[in-house]
Amino acid sequence: MRTLPQPHPEDFDLAAVLHALGDPVRLELVRRLAEEGETTCSPEGLTVPRSTLSNHWRILREAGVVAVRTSGKTRLVTLRRNDLDTRLPGLLAAVLEELTGGLDG
Amino acid sequence: MRTLPQPHPEDFDLAAVLHALGDPVRLELVRRLAEEGETTCSPEGLTVPRSTLSNHWRILREAGVVAVRTSGKTRLVTLRRNDLDTRLPGLLAAVLEELTGGLDG
Repeated sequence: MRTLPQPHPEDFDLAAVLHALGDPVRLELVRRLAEEGETTCSPEGLTVPRSTLSNHWRILREAGVVAVRTSGKTRLVTLRRNDLDTRLPGLLAAVLEELTGGLDG
Repeated sequence: MRTLPQPHPEDFDLAAVLHALGDPVRLELVRRLAEEGETTCSPEGLTVPRSTLSNHWRILREAGVVAVRTSGKTRLVTLRRNDLDTRLPGLLAAVLEELTGGLDG
């Protein structure tokens, strides 16, 4: 089991985190992680080319939004919820409120 | 006095708002608006080409983050704080906390 490189919470950059979240596909990935917990990096039902998806995961990982660990040939992804909540309080909660429980559903 | 086109709060798109905020220059513009209130669209001390700055304002305006009104040849910009707070509760507050009062100053 190996964890891919990721920033320490102290090194989170607000612009990088917002940029990572500022894309419809990446928001959908974050929504699924929030609802389902750890997932593989190839979630079902997303019609996104593998290379594009890989790029989205990299952007999310490098910003500190997700952690990726490899187990054999499988990559498992988790949302770094605690790190985000500690470093940028309220940000992820506001995003998830809109993604999963907002007025517009 | 004329207000440039801007989305109604009901039409705010989370990804577009996060994308608009996910840039260091645009975050600096938002920080200044939050601290100084209405400003001209050519803030002092920013070494950004006019065309680049104009593009940043457009992205912020089209996402609903700022409102721009023209008065003669002057463009005046305000942060749409109430609209953002109503439509995406907690998001702007979390961003401003990090920009103006966060642990790292």
